[in-house]
Amino acid sequence: MSKIIANGTIVTASETYRADVRIDGERISHIGKGIAPAPGDEVIDASGLLVMPGGIDAHTHLDLPVAGTHASDDFETGTRAAAFGGTTTVIDFVSPARGDGLMDSYRVWRGKAEGKACIDYGLHMSVVDERPEVFDELDDVIDAGMPTIKIYTAYPATLMISDGAILRLLSWASKRGALVVAHAENGGAIDELTRSIAAQGKTAPRFHLDARPAVLEGEATNRLIALAEAVDAPIGIVHVTCREALNAVRSARQRGLDVFAETCPHYLYLTEESLKAPGFEGAKFICSPPLRTRDDQKALWHALAAGDLDTVSTDHCPFNFHGQKELGLSDFRKIPGGLPGIETRLMLLWQGVRNGRITQNRFVELVSTAPARINGLLPRKGILAPDADADILLWDPERELTLDADVLHMNVDYSPYEGMRVKGAPAKVFSRGELVVDGETFVGTPGRGRYLKRIPTN
Amino acid sequence: MSKIIANGTIVTASETYRADVRIDGERISHIGKGIAPAPGDEVIDASGLLVMPGGIDAHTHLDLPVAGTHASDDFETGTRAAAFGGTTTVIDFVSPARGDGLMDSYRVWRGKAEGKACIDYGLHMSVVDERPEVFDELDDVIDAGMPTIKIYTAYPATLMISDGAILRLLSWASKRGALVVAHAENGGAIDELTRSIAAQGKTAPRFHLDARPAVLEGEATNRLIALAEAVDAPIGIVHVTCREALNAVRSARQRGLDVFAETCPHYLYLTEESLKAPGFEGAKFICSPPLRTRDDQKALWHALAAGDLDTVSTDHCPFNFHGQKELGLSDFRKIPGGLPGIETRLMLLWQGVRNGRITQNRFVELVSTAPARINGLLPRKGILAPDADADILLWDPERELTLDADVLHMNVDYSPYEGMRVKGAPAKVFSRGELVVDGETFVGTPGRGRYLKRIPTN
Amino acid sequence: MSKIIANGTIVTASETYRADVRIDGERISHIGKGIAPAPGDEVIDASGLLVMPGGIDAHTHLDLPVAGTHASDDFETGTRAAAFGGTTTVIDFVSPARGDGLMDSYRVWRGKAEGKACIDYGLHMSVVDERPEVFDELDDVIDAGMPTIKIYTAYPATLMISDGAILRLLSWASKRGALVVAHAENGGAIDELTRSIAAQGKTAPRFHLDARPAVLEGEATNRLIALAEAVDAPIGIVHVTCREALNAVRSARQRGLDVFAETCPHYLYLTEESLKAPGFEGAKFICSPPLRTRDDQKALWHALAAGDLDTVSTDHCPFNFHGQKELGLSDFRKIPGGLPGIETRLMLLWQGVRNGRITQNRFVELVSTAPARINGLLPRKGILAPDADADILLWDPERELTLDADVLHMNVDYSPYEGMRVKGAPAKVFSRGELVVDGETFVGTPGRGRYLKRIPTN
Amino acid sequence: MSKIIANGTIVTASETYRADVRIDGERISHIGKGIAPAPGDEVIDASGLLVMPGGIDAHTHLDLPVAGTHASDDFETGTRAAAFGGTTTVIDFVSPARGDGLMDSYRVWRGKAEGKACIDYGLHMSVVDERPEVFDELDDVIDAGMPTIKIYTAYPATLMISDGAILRLLSWASKRGALVVAHAENGGAIDELTRSIAAQGKTAPRFHLDARPAVLEGEATNRLIALAEAVDAPIGIVHVTCREALNAVRSARQRGLDVFAETCPHYLYLTEESLKAPGFEGAKFICSPPLRTRDDQKALWHALAAGDLDTVSTDHCPFNFHGQKELGLSDFRKIPGGLPGIETRLMLLWQGVRNGRITQNRFVELVSTAPARINGLLPRKGILAPDADADILLWDPERELTLDADVLHMNVDYSPYEGMRVKGAPAKVFSRGELVVDGETFVGTPGRGRYLKRIPTN
Repeated sequence: MSKIIANGTIVTASETYRADVRIDGERISHIGKGIAPAPGDEVIDASGLLVMPGGIDAHTHLDLPVAGTHASDDFETGTRAAAFGGTTTVIDFVSPARGDGLMDSYRVWRGKAEGKACIDYGLHMSVVDERPEVFDELDDVIDAGMPTIKIYTAYPATLMISDGAILRLLSWASKRGALVVAHAENGGAIDELTRSIAAQGKTAPRFHLDARPAVLEGEATNRLIALAEAVDAPIGIVHVTCREALNAVRSARQRGLDVFAETCPHYLYLTEESLKAPGFEGAKFICSPPLRTRDDQKALWHALAAGDLDTVSTDHCPFNFHGQKELGLSDFRKIPGGLPGIETRLMLLWQGVRNGRITQNRFVELVSTAPARINGLLPRKGILAPDADADILLWDPERELTLDADVLHMNVDYSPYEGMRVKGAPAKVFSRGELVVDGETFVGTPGRGRYLKRIPTN
Repeated sequence: MSKIIANGTIVTASETYRADVRIDGERISHIGKGIAPAPGDEVIDASGLLVMPGGIDAHTHLDLPVAGTHASDDFETGTRAAAFGGTTTVIDFVSPARGDGLMDSYRVWRGKAEGKACIDYGLHMSVVDERPEVFDELDDVIDAGMPTIKIYTAYPATLMISDGAILRLLSWASKRGALVVAHAENGGAIDELTRSIAAQGKTAPRFHLDARPAVLEGEATNRLIALAEAVDAPIGIVHVTCREALNAVRSARQRGLDVFAETCPHYLYLTEESLKAPGFEGAKFICSPPLRTRDDQKALWHALAAGDLDTVSTDHCPFNFHGQKELGLSDFRKIPGGLPGIETRLMLLWQGVRNGRITQNRFVELVSTAPARINGLLPRKGILAPDADADILLWDPERELTLDADVLHMNVDYSPYEGMRVKGAPAKVFSRGELVVDGETFVGTPGRGRYLKRIPTN
Repeated sequence: MSKIIANGTIVTASETYRADVRIDGERISHIGKGIAPAPGDEVIDASGLLVMPGGIDAHTHLDLPVAGTHASDDFETGTRAAAFGGTTTVIDFVSPARGDGLMDSYRVWRGKAEGKACIDYGLHMSVVDERPEVFDELDDVIDAGMPTIKIYTAYPATLMISDGAILRLLSWASKRGALVVAHAENGGAIDELTRSIAAQGKTAPRFHLDARPAVLEGEATNRLIALAEAVDAPIGIVHVTCREALNAVRSARQRGLDVFAETCPHYLYLTEESLKAPGFEGAKFICSPPLRTRDDQKALWHALAAGDLDTVSTDHCPFNFHGQKELGLSDFRKIPGGLPGIETRLMLLWQGVRNGRITQNRFVELVSTAPARINGLLPRKGILAPDADADILLWDPERELTLDADVLHMNVDYSPYEGMRVKGAPAKVFSRGELVVDGETFVGTPGRGRYLKRIPTN
Repeated sequence: MSKIIANGTIVTASETYRADVRIDGERISHIGKGIAPAPGDEVIDASGLLVMPGGIDAHTHLDLPVAGTHASDDFETGTRAAAFGGTTTVIDFVSPARGDGLMDSYRVWRGKAEGKACIDYGLHMSVVDERPEVFDELDDVIDAGMPTIKIYTAYPATLMISDGAILRLLSWASKRGALVVAHAENGGAIDELTRSIAAQGKTAPRFHLDARPAVLEGEATNRLIALAEAVDAPIGIVHVTCREALNAVRSARQRGLDVFAETCPHYLYLTEESLKAPGFEGAKFICSPPLRTRDDQKALWHALAAGDLDTVSTDHCPFNFHGQKELGLSDFRKIPGGLPGIETRLMLLWQGVRNGRITQNRFVELVSTAPARINGLLPRKGILAPDADADILLWDPERELTLDADVLHMNVDYSPYEGMRVKGAPAKVFSRGELVVDGETFVGTPGRGRYLKRIPTN
């Protein structure tokens, strides 16, 4: 007894064609012209719909403890919202505190997902201190399916590690085929700017911008790439927001370096103007790196089209305006940083298809196939092909909705895109052959999502 | 009665996976896991082989009249050699002389292919004069299936048109969805340099290099892009050879322009050193733009990997060393310019896969899917998908051969790659479901190739 | 009987110091501390004033015939206005029509200056056609003191010469030590854009902008530099206006080329917004290349400070609004192009000193010493040194005036800077030791200016 | 009773002209044409000689303690050698150890110079730790005449300070008009590379190169500029050696930043090949940043000509091969780093004038006027002008010598330029009006040199 998705238009990262898809069990078995249903087969009519591999969001922070509170989505609410938005895989960041054993933290994160994840998930490991034992633990980390290691050049007090340690980690990762991915901002300089700003009594949300200028993101991006170049290692830069960082990435590729770069929808649709809103409203838009200018937005879109950015992920890390963002009412430094986005990623980026900025195929590449490739999930995830997991998204290019908090399913009391109307949205979402979202209804089960052991790709 | 290509590994422009392919008639009907043969079905065992869409060579000059002689391959020998090399579609250039009616020339070119083409073929149209009527004729050209118009900034005496005419053509093409593709060298400057060099009695092949410096290719590339930018039109640059031109392309994309760029295998594997060979030997390597330096080669490979070049075509335009290249024995200006390459393209580029410069998927993108996309052949050619033409290449990554003239099948008495050993070559080649090459044997029929009416894509 | 300029502060291109200057006859004889006057010596008290070499304006069009009319300043009114503004030397362009003998035109230009020039003057020669005899005539041109040859890549119908001819001219000039200076815009493309714009019935002044986009200036600048690079010749680019052109210049210098670049005050103080004024007002601001954006202005100022631009000249070519600019009332193509500026150059640029964009020394370099160096006038003009011509400007940093037409002395019925208040202006101006301007009074004599035979410098 | 330097050709940073110079006491009093000597005046015939301001070497390390030994030149031998080479002012670096009071160290350095300095000298202050009190001490440092503060991004164990501290220092300096100058290499990464290299048993001098790749100098240069940009401060980069660093400097200036950059003669004349000499010979060429490639050399020369580098200083820090460099016979990490150069700077750079890379005026700018300007010594030093100190160099463009250790006067047992023949050398050197070097004879007195209190210039 199979499922047949019939009469749809298949869109892959490089091609668009009409064909049917047959699903046997959890996997795709055939792609063909006019696949004849056998008795008992379920035929899903995809007329007028686009058939794509489900989205892969390689950058989420579910259930993350931050400064005394937690990101408001846990693995249940977060992955359910992801599915509503057409995403069938997330890769979340294991986030140990300094001194925590990496594998201990891994187990904590598996525990957070246990019984909750509605779709499959993988994990990245974060390295936030320079204990010599870290390198021993990292071998286990890779064996446990996490060949992608996150580092920070920001947050000296809690997350940043030194340039020497980064170089050593890059050198190790290169030999192991692992990929180091980095948050690129100059934390030391930011802390000094922040101190200076606060000392002047500047406490409103908009001063977050002054503390984190684009030039310091460009600087750290350039530095990370230089460190990778010095040891001939690949490197990934997450959440690229500005021209300075893009220039560093582009220049590196031009000289043959293996640099991967990601951006996020909020950098493509919002600007620093949101942060400058009067009163405390700007707090809704506080994240790091911060939102940038309209010229930066334009440059990011050009880079998406030209291939200078590889993926669009969310950095989903939501906090309620009331009760959470408000922790920083009197001091922007205390506002937990992060935006909700796990549900809206594909709908937002699709508007770029509609207005001609990117093609449908580039859309699929950016939200699914490239994240799968870079993160070691191919050929199981991120493609429509025989034997691949039947993580399939039926996309309705005519469906319209408004990105308001009460329309969306994330566990957060506001939307950064309040009032924004989009056209193009999921019609049905399958995870390993199982229908999990049917229009506005979630029909999956929390806990059905499985952990994905990933393998080194470099 | 179908054909089933079983047990192979499919490689597309974005994905690699194990699956079988079923061919019904001239087209692919299904891609699936373990496709069961029906009675009478032919099963081709592709164990150990890679299954790819056949190559598309978007830049050939078959049977081209040049300075009193003709390119030594006609549509029969040329397309047969193409098939031997894994290419199942060529797009040749209709090359009118000044004053010739465009559609008259089109019919001449169809006549050249008639009864000869062994694989399917399309045609580009060249515009080499500024007669006002050209624009009227161009509408017919598009209707006849040629939405790609070639222009030259070189060869003032025969092919070059003025910047004003180019701008007008770009503006027109942009409105019609057509694509202008250009040979980018500054012909006026080259002619003056050539005159000056010849006046000094410098007649050996190597002086061809002095007459056509890279800076004049970079200049023309930059100029063409500027003209396109001025009227917001897309543009294609063929046979990019040097860093100066790459910089112009890259900078254009960075500011959001729609620029397509091609390079050729000889620029990736040969250098100006070949041209400097003693005596007349260098004549074998005369083409325009000329071969460049090792640093340029490196930059081209980086650009292929980084996505700054879109396709690899051949500019196939062979002349025998004896009798043809020798026309310029006493004067390099009389050496007919062009290299054979229609057969060796995929084998050469595959070496870049073997040594890690590009991935298998990027290989397929460069030699097949991207040329199909840019030239309006999708979804019929350039992909493996239900309903696509069954132009299928079974690639044997273990097959080795030497690129000598007596091993190859092009109608030319030398090989630019004499003695070069490659690993990875076609095992079998299907054109519209028909086996045309089986290892070292051509089993197709001249004349079976069909003209491809292409449609505007922009 | 000498003159002693006492108690002033000397400002040269590299230094600022307190000293007195003694003038014997037409030349400076001594610079010293507390020079004691001999009996009969005239002492000019320069307390509170800056003592600089007089300005050199290397780009003027006096008495130029343009499309049935003439630039409204002749050598008398123009050089008098120049002197009022602190300029003591102009270099005007001999502007033959196609087919005119170069030396004939030279004599015409000498005739225009005869009996009129109030200050010394040199001449550049323009080459506007490709007659083979031009190269013979050019030897005489150099012998007559004009080692700087002007060419145009714009105005195909009247002034433009081909890339081949430019290359040949550059090659010749390089061997003779002469300098080719160029107007850089792509004339062919501009003519086609203009035709297209006019065909749409767009006739107001602001459409001048659409016909001459910055990208076409950048293109031509890049092309000229490439042609110079191909024959290893120096080249000068006049009136640089935009980032595209600056990038070309900067990139050339980075790779070691000898490129000189000039800008003009109107590109530093006005923008395209002036051209967009309602009605016909914009005609006052029509010149080529046109005024650009605020971002371009900023880039020009940065380039002045960083040394990426070498000189500030005026391209002075004034036309009365009434009767002359009005020739194009019904069609922007008929508006004579050019702005008045010969008098206001130093006062405008000085505002950049006041607001910290450039230093006093850089000011002197840009308006006097560099033009002298590049144009073969050192050590006679452009410096304060023993034996140099006593072309001396006493600058009053406290003097204020408004740049209105009725305040200024140019023979033109409007000012592009109407209402603009400047601080810093000439107090006294000496030409070869003779006081010619004393505050608001001209005390020189028309015809006293001498022709300067210049010598090749490269 | 005056001195008159007669019949020479004066070369300043912007001009060349024939004139005489009169010296009264310690200062220049007049520059004039044919200055008539009064009775008792001493006339120095400068026929055939160039008259220039004495060289200013803004980067020396005299008597510097390094790893248990001392730079082999003290203030006596070092400044005498400087004078022999045409340098009349040095600015040495006060180099406190961590925890040392800045003003205490200043006094130590004054003591080193006391009774020894043969020419005038200034001091820079180095900040090598982040004690909060440093900022209080810095006010005294400025008052004591040291408005230039040196920092390091290299040598984490001894000299490096954090990015946050650098940002704070830049912000402070900007407000005080002081200039931060920086050694730009990524020390953390270098230490890690060094550790890794040494762990592989690689101990020969050439491995110094592997530990300090150019990309890490480019990185640190880019970072320092970014930090300066974040707080709108000027910054100086000392000893720029490579294209990566030049690119960072150039790009900064293009966007309007106030960045000063220095290089040294050894980067202009030597390459990494010297370091790769067999055996221990390479130790003679160990300095940091290390010598680079021929392509880097070429880029540095282009930058000198184009104005992208501002000064040429020496980083003079000599160690004898025997007994000092040999400390690292078994381990390159123990070789004291530094080259002798204080005497050869002008002679080396002059070869660039001879072969047309830079002009005579640019030479004077690079070795004298620009260092004076940037370091707050104008108008007392670095120029030939009335009232300036009579620090005058008579340069003989015809004098030839070989740069061997036994020809030179530095206190070091080898020369990096052994066997190199130069043309153009000092004939006579005056310091404050006193002849101190007469051809091959030193006629000055140790201890006659005075400390120069410099003032903030920004």
